[in-house]
Amino acid sequence: MSKEITSRAEDYSQWYNDLVLKGSLADYSAVRGCMVIKPYGYTLWENMSDQLDRMFKETGHQNAYFPLFVPKNFLEKEEGHAEGFAKECAVVTHYRLKADPAAKGKLIVDPEAKLEEELIIRPTSEAIIWNTYRDWIQSYRDLPILVNQWANVVRWEMRTRLFLRTAEFLWQEGHTAHATKEEAVAETEKMLDVYARFAEEYMAMPVIRGLKTESERFAGAEDTYCIEALMQDGKALQAGTSHFLGQNFAKAFDVKFLTKDNQQEYVWATSWGTSTRLVGALVMVHSDDDGLILPPRIAPLQVVIIPISSKDGAAQKRIHEKARNLVQELKAAGLSVKFDDDDTSRPGWKFAEYELKGVPVRIALGARDLDNNVAEVVRRDTKEKRSVSLDGLPAYVVTLLGDIQRAMFNKAKVYRDEHITKADAWNEFETTLDEKGGFIAAHWDGTAETEEAIKEKTKATIRCIPLNAEQEAGRCILTGRPSKQRVLFARAY
Amino acid sequence: MSKEITSRAEDYSQWYNDLVLKGSLADYSAVRGCMVIKPYGYTLWENMSDQLDRMFKETGHQNAYFPLFVPKNFLEKEEGHAEGFAKECAVVTHYRLKADPAAKGKLIVDPEAKLEEELIIRPTSEAIIWNTYRDWIQSYRDLPILVNQWANVVRWEMRTRLFLRTAEFLWQEGHTAHATKEEAVAETEKMLDVYARFAEEYMAMPVIRGLKTESERFAGAEDTYCIEALMQDGKALQAGTSHFLGQNFAKAFDVKFLTKDNQQEYVWATSWGTSTRLVGALVMVHSDDDGLILPPRIAPLQVVIIPISSKDGAAQKRIHEKARNLVQELKAAGLSVKFDDDDTSRPGWKFAEYELKGVPVRIALGARDLDNNVAEVVRRDTKEKRSVSLDGLPAYVVTLLGDIQRAMFNKAKVYRDEHITKADAWNEFETTLDEKGGFIAAHWDGTAETEEAIKEKTKATIRCIPLNAEQEAGRCILTGRPSKQRVLFARAY
Repeated sequence: MSKEITSRAEDYSQWYNDLVLKGSLADYSAVRGCMVIKPYGYTLWENMSDQLDRMFKETGHQNAYFPLFVPKNFLEKEEGHAEGFAKECAVVTHYRLKADPAAKGKLIVDPEAKLEEELIIRPTSEAIIWNTYRDWIQSYRDLPILVNQWANVVRWEMRTRLFLRTAEFLWQEGHTAHATKEEAVAETEKMLDVYARFAEEYMAMPVIRGLKTESERFAGAEDTYCIEALMQDGKALQAGTSHFLGQNFAKAFDVKFLTKDNQQEYVWATSWGTSTRLVGALVMVHSDDDGLILPPRIAPLQVVIIPISSKDGAAQKRIHEKARNLVQELKAAGLSVKFDDDDTSRPGWKFAEYELKGVPVRIALGARDLDNNVAEVVRRDTKEKRSVSLDGLPAYVVTLLGDIQRAMFNKAKVYRDEHITKADAWNEFETTLDEKGGFIAAHWDGTAETEEAIKEKTKATIRCIPLNAEQEAGRCILTGRPSKQRVLFARAY
Repeated sequence: MSKEITSRAEDYSQWYNDLVLKGSLADYSAVRGCMVIKPYGYTLWENMSDQLDRMFKETGHQNAYFPLFVPKNFLEKEEGHAEGFAKECAVVTHYRLKADPAAKGKLIVDPEAKLEEELIIRPTSEAIIWNTYRDWIQSYRDLPILVNQWANVVRWEMRTRLFLRTAEFLWQEGHTAHATKEEAVAETEKMLDVYARFAEEYMAMPVIRGLKTESERFAGAEDTYCIEALMQDGKALQAGTSHFLGQNFAKAFDVKFLTKDNQQEYVWATSWGTSTRLVGALVMVHSDDDGLILPPRIAPLQVVIIPISSKDGAAQKRIHEKARNLVQELKAAGLSVKFDDDDTSRPGWKFAEYELKGVPVRIALGARDLDNNVAEVVRRDTKEKRSVSLDGLPAYVVTLLGDIQRAMFNKAKVYRDEHITKADAWNEFETTLDEKGGFIAAHWDGTAETEEAIKEKTKATIRCIPLNAEQEAGRCILTGRPSKQRVLFARAY
């Protein structure tokens, strides 16, 4: 059934690529490191981004749009930011092509159309946005600014992977401006909470909320909050970050405001983002060797109805009529549903195809089913089959989709929880990492040197310092120096 | 009241800029020719693009996403296309910056990070998409492909204007692939119809449907269909185009399919697009010297409620309570509504502010109104004031918004119809153009030379050959040569 899908056990990485490519989510493109998001994958992304957008608006944010280009000198203004992004920038140097005098039909860059100052394709928009906010903010009355942008960004990564790391990717980036530090920190935490709720309630993907260590922080941030998820191969994936930027960008771009007390003060900032990377996480958290398994709340297609063909023309007609009725009823119940009546492929082929695509519920309708007033209903996550009365079918399917959503979250959570392992000795740490994977909760002495040494020895990084974790005195897993709290290590995407 | 808005009579162009900037739709940016779309302007664009997106989906299209970058050699493959776009391309030549050894804190382009082949920022995506479609299409079963993309594109225009012509702009581009010419032509016409319905039913902007002449065609198209609108200064604006591309791109990118009869044939193509330019058209079609006038169906905010402050604390409290009730009732009726209870500005200031922003309906609530169980309701388009009973207010407002939508369309249509003038003599043509403006319906001999000569003499271009226009024998307005149908000339944005 699982046509040409490499199994997870055989090659996890190839399994992932197979699902993305053969599940029709995305294709490689002719441009190095860039992908094409196919209609099925894009609909999935739309369902995810539409929901995030609703949550942003419910929390008081509005969308806006800022230029794709960042003048080079803007990037220089915040030192840490420049260091973080300069090495992976696509640079526009010219604004015109012309006919190649040496080769008919060919184009060359027109040397006379050289820009005075190079433009960088935005790798993120703090610089261009804070340069704009300077004009928008004069007094405390102009604050807060609660703005989000849906956009494409470019980071010239050397090693790319479909959805997980591409040179160009789609994302949203929130950029807010506040009168006080407290308000900015509260905003940073609020948006982390939005991301966590989205991941858990819609993607059915449990996440751990935490703080990044200094060396893993966003370039230009005072604090980076993150949500971390666990993939089925035991590797972690950062699924969203929310940054408290302090007054760093306000100082770099000279953005001050008049306080109620008539003082000039620098503005406090946050930024927060999630990207098409989430699609990669979704694939890796839930799917199996037969294909994608998509959570009902964001699946592009929730229900597919497949007729079991009959040689009896009258029976055939009854099946199609009943199927079309069902489509209407299921649509009326708010579900996305497709009746696949393409008679050039067989039911078995279709079953495999929709399993590959991760459609949560499949309904098969044959002549004998109709005689018995039932349909065969199969849920994708467990592949459990049931014969269900046609009378209450729409209500049954609505309930079933809710069950699937919950079951997917619970299964992922059990796996994740089983893969958080405490380690108190170095050999335990290494063995767990190599043999079991997942998160390792261990003490750390708080220094960047130790963090770096552990990374060099094991390729594991500190994924986060979990929020609200218990305080517990202990000794650093590597150096034995004192520590007050465990942090979470893992190898990561 | 109309704080610092230049009047149309004084300077139409400055009036437009004032509305865009002071109406909070957009700002200039630090990047030449690029603008910042502010939250209010972006919400307007969201309302427009969301509706277009629904109409695309209702007509069977799905969204997808293709790379921002187009390799230079792709652009060369379709000759007309290359000529049309090569002169205004932003070109990426490098992928890394590095610290400037000569100036601390400065960045320079790393000469070692030069791309082997330059990448063009997409000015439109036919090239990259048809290179992808080659992999998607093998047989007639893979057709049609009905795909749309929402994206940013860059055309390095020398003269830019907010929304109307910017170096970077947001748009949608549909790219479809078909097995037959007839189907592709039908698709081209269907999407023109979608654009026309959107413009008329949602933007309240009457449009003329037509065909472009050969010299005004899209670079690479066999036929370009368009909708043309008329602005209040008598200039025309192209508000959307739908192209029948024939087999040009299929041939350039070698995209063939196996027909039912087992023949290899080139695929037929269409593309169609509308952009943020529509926001500029919307502003210019409806607004007046006091500010924007936005059609209710796409206005970011449909109703604003303004309390008339009272020195009597108890009355003040009653006003606010009633206003908040009204907000709930209006929201329940599906309207977007804001209660502006900011007590740092006065009602008169707020009236002017919401007039400037074009909010269709304003409701003022004072103590005496409450005593009489009424509110003052003002519609933005005509500024007509009514005292309306509070009992049936939500229903009244819903009806009023419908009336405003229709009235705005009718007003624009009367203006447009009055500005289509037949001309049969050259002096009539010139006089009408200079003194009245608008469209001139005149005979044309069908040659590019005459079209060009008229353009040089008058700056008027053939906006379109109207669809379904009556056939009428006549003589070319310039050359006197025979003609079978009038075409529409105008000066245009």
